[in-house]
Amino acid sequence: MAKQNATKKNILYAQSGGVTPVINATACGVIETAARHRSQIGKVYAAQDGIMGALEERLIDTGKENKTTITGLKHTPGGAFGSCRYKLKSIEHSRAEYERLIEVFKAHNIGYFFYNGGGDSADTAHKVSQIGAKLGFPVQCIGIPKTIDNDLPVTDCCPGFGSVAKYVAVSIMEASLDVMSMASSSTKVFVLEVMGRHAGWIAAAGGLARQAEEDPPHVILLPEVPLDQRAFLRKVKHAVENYGYCSIVVSEGLRNKRGQFLSDAGTRDAFGHAQLGGVAPVVAQLVKDKLGYKYHWAVSDYLQRSARHIASQTDVDHAYAVGRAAVEFALAGKSGVMPVIVRQSDKPYRWKIGEARLSRVANREKMLPKRYISKDGFGITAAARRYLEPLIHGEAYPPYDKRGLPKYVQLKKVLAAQKLPPFTV
Amino acid sequence: MAKQNATKKNILYAQSGGVTPVINATACGVIETAARHRSQIGKVYAAQDGIMGALEERLIDTGKENKTTITGLKHTPGGAFGSCRYKLKSIEHSRAEYERLIEVFKAHNIGYFFYNGGGDSADTAHKVSQIGAKLGFPVQCIGIPKTIDNDLPVTDCCPGFGSVAKYVAVSIMEASLDVMSMASSSTKVFVLEVMGRHAGWIAAAGGLARQAEEDPPHVILLPEVPLDQRAFLRKVKHAVENYGYCSIVVSEGLRNKRGQFLSDAGTRDAFGHAQLGGVAPVVAQLVKDKLGYKYHWAVSDYLQRSARHIASQTDVDHAYAVGRAAVEFALAGKSGVMPVIVRQSDKPYRWKIGEARLSRVANREKMLPKRYISKDGFGITAAARRYLEPLIHGEAYPPYDKRGLPKYVQLKKVLAAQKLPPFTV
Repeated sequence: MAKQNATKKNILYAQSGGVTPVINATACGVIETAARHRSQIGKVYAAQDGIMGALEERLIDTGKENKTTITGLKHTPGGAFGSCRYKLKSIEHSRAEYERLIEVFKAHNIGYFFYNGGGDSADTAHKVSQIGAKLGFPVQCIGIPKTIDNDLPVTDCCPGFGSVAKYVAVSIMEASLDVMSMASSSTKVFVLEVMGRHAGWIAAAGGLARQAEEDPPHVILLPEVPLDQRAFLRKVKHAVENYGYCSIVVSEGLRNKRGQFLSDAGTRDAFGHAQLGGVAPVVAQLVKDKLGYKYHWAVSDYLQRSARHIASQTDVDHAYAVGRAAVEFALAGKSGVMPVIVRQSDKPYRWKIGEARLSRVANREKMLPKRYISKDGFGITAAARRYLEPLIHGEAYPPYDKRGLPKYVQLKKVLAAQKLPPFTV
Repeated sequence: MAKQNATKKNILYAQSGGVTPVINATACGVIETAARHRSQIGKVYAAQDGIMGALEERLIDTGKENKTTITGLKHTPGGAFGSCRYKLKSIEHSRAEYERLIEVFKAHNIGYFFYNGGGDSADTAHKVSQIGAKLGFPVQCIGIPKTIDNDLPVTDCCPGFGSVAKYVAVSIMEASLDVMSMASSSTKVFVLEVMGRHAGWIAAAGGLARQAEEDPPHVILLPEVPLDQRAFLRKVKHAVENYGYCSIVVSEGLRNKRGQFLSDAGTRDAFGHAQLGGVAPVVAQLVKDKLGYKYHWAVSDYLQRSARHIASQTDVDHAYAVGRAAVEFALAGKSGVMPVIVRQSDKPYRWKIGEARLSRVANREKMLPKRYISKDGFGITAAARRYLEPLIHGEAYPPYDKRGLPKYVQLKKVLAAQKLPPFTV
């Protein structure tokens, strides 16, 4: 089975972890760029359902898709090839899986493995690059950054974050106009819950809606700042008494002073992270109990990370560029690296693609730095604003059909013929 | 104080009840149309905070706003002048308030009262038109339709609904792509809670995202259909087993077979309606308990009814047109009426403005008709689709600033000098 022409190697691309509004734009960047280098690169396979599909030899042949469908990936949210939260453990612990992966690579003449994910995935890509060399089948492993949480180190920002940031800033701006309209006689406090387990980047982005002191959101509750209940309630009361209402953005990862999540569903995901949700009603009820204000709350959950309809142009550009760069890195013979976003200036915003070692990116979370958090802990600073603003710039609208709905594409997902015995994760 | 020039009467415009993404487009239609008839109409006042501001003589002089701000109302969500849920009761019960209203009208030479709201407001406008005549100060009272719930009779649809419908259809389409990506190894069930106390129009609109059998949403839970738990769970299981996941839209007003709300917060609003919220986690937990599927849920709450960023062009057109029509009705000497949307054809969609007696509109809720609900009660029919599709047609995007945020306008709200003794609601 290793008798294929090995001079032109194939790419295996896989999406990992939670998806984003623009992860498919990265896939589009990979596929379109590879197509422009047909003399050097063979096929582009995409693992179905992420690394699980790679292990189970479920490889989607992207060459069987229409060109317009591939172009349409640029404006389609979700993970078009499927993703998963399956994490390969240490090589000692999961040797069989690493070896299987190399078997699959051999069987399908994979010379380039592109793993599109967050810190966990950078770690996996790093390990795969090591094991391949050890097993005598060297594969160029390239991590491609993706995470709405914006918590990867080294890169200035993560593709996926800018669009979620825009969604959250626009949504809290809009909902606050609603609350403001009715506050004199009705709802006085509105709480919007957003994602972010440990890092408060998404919640912080809500602060972009605020231009003047009286503007919403009046309070941002970050996972980096343990909730000081008395200070929080004082802040809410001040907003209601001075501006008529109080608009709050709360991160799902908000903790109390004892380090406990305010709302812990008690279940854990496959990576062992606690599954959260529902902190908004807890915060709203606290306000009601202590201050008596009528409230409303929203939990945007998956809506925020799939809202391609309000994606940021900067974010789409980044997402496409890191996909393109992965192919260019591969052609340049690189391995064990990740293309990253390098900021050259804030105003005007200028950026370029840089390069980072996967070992530097893996398993490290970048928290919101102190200088981005206002002194009282309930807002963001001018420095945060300078950092965040370029990331939500521009509206990359998807095309719409006659019915008034976005034209999101769906792939045919034609699988390559399997060549190996079955392997179940 | 009645010594003003009575030949040219002023308009008093008031927003009522829950606001919408396009109620300000109606205000814009009123103000811009009145400005084109300066020889016949005096000022346009807008009551601050709805009818409460009218009673308390807090009248915003819209002539003091910049023209571009008024034009900007067309793309600004919320209720720019403020709204409230205060309802005038029967004339016998609330005589003092009706008389006060007429006093305010007299003091400010109001010849036209435009009340922009739902069924309750049509009732109030109707009563005001009767009492004015009785008290010797006849005022032309015109109701202007507005409600995201789409539950007004006579009119084909209600301004505000189309945009919420578009938001819900787009959102469930997007979030479902997200769930689908991860379903093989993670979340299998997604529940989106939408508004709609008694009428399921908003939840039904989610069904527009579904083109083929396997498309989401797979289940719609309507307030018109008491939850048959066994049939529901069968339906969820079928979707997960056949399409890999299940996407659900649930109306906040979902009831069990005994007629109880699945989630009743226990509090009531000023109109005596039960305040709801949080049915999504209840439905999600039910699925988890009975079928064991991992879930996620979202509660869109105010986000859905303020999402001007994804407003429907049809809806904005309707909203502006009913505002314009109110002025034209006033000029034609009409009173006790409401401009309504009359559908002339589905495909191509054609509509015009018609006229309805307020007495026919008041206090009646238009439920989703049976012929719009699929036989099993969990979806919508082709007839519903024909009705709904034109209402979400077209993307009426607001302009954005350099920061990447919508340019929503804020009014100066200059109040007319008060002429009467204070009156507190």
